[in-house]
Amino acid sequence: MEKVNLAGKLSLFSDYYFPRIVGELNGQQVKLVKIKGDFTWHQHDTEDELFLVVKGKFDMQFRERSVEVKEGEFLIVPRGVEHRPSAAEECHILLFEPAGTLNTGNVENEFTRSKPERI
Amino acid sequence: MEKVNLAGKLSLFSDYYFPRIVGELNGQQVKLVKIKGDFTWHQHDTEDELFLVVKGKFDMQFRERSVEVKEGEFLIVPRGVEHRPSAAEECHILLFEPAGTLNTGNVENEFTRSKPERI
Repeated sequence: MEKVNLAGKLSLFSDYYFPRIVGELNGQQVKLVKIKGDFTWHQHDTEDELFLVVKGKFDMQFRERSVEVKEGEFLIVPRGVEHRPSAAEECHILLFEPAGTLNTGNVENEFTRSKPERI
Repeated sequence: MEKVNLAGKLSLFSDYYFPRIVGELNGQQVKLVKIKGDFTWHQHDTEDELFLVVKGKFDMQFRERSVEVKEGEFLIVPRGVEHRPSAAEECHILLFEPAGTLNTGNVENEFTRSKPERI
């Protein structure tokens, strides 16, 4: 039952698209991730994902459109919806999703991080 | 799949300790609440709760100690742990908890809001 300071946790790593676990509750995990550039197109067949921007902004691309999400805003991507995050500049994001959610969903490639660290 | 702006949603209400639902995923809900003053002592027997401070600061009181949580910080209160939020000045909080979590947990009194509105 210790509080978590987002900026403090974010200062512990600098790589992109590699989420870290910073909290767990009710079978869900809270993760932090820094992103820059394009991620990979993917979907999660059984998990909804929440993206809350802590710093900066990014575009959540869908096949038919794109949503710009800025600091102080969140977007929920429902299960089964193909998506690709993209950020022109570094962006810091808090994720809420079920424990064990794979960052690349149904895809396995160079972006896949199957064992995110808890920090 | 529309994004949610926290400040925009927070501008829609001004009462204290009355959470509004602003998102739902994986059987969990995202709520926003403004608090000021002391809440009521309570616990949730089957739900863990996350409190992320969006603006200001508050004290999460436990029977043996208290934790000050400030903007950009979050605290997870595990199920079964008695707690009482308290804020000297107005504080804005994002909550993440299972759908249907009652704000006063095992207690029913003047603080109880059994049907939070979705905004």
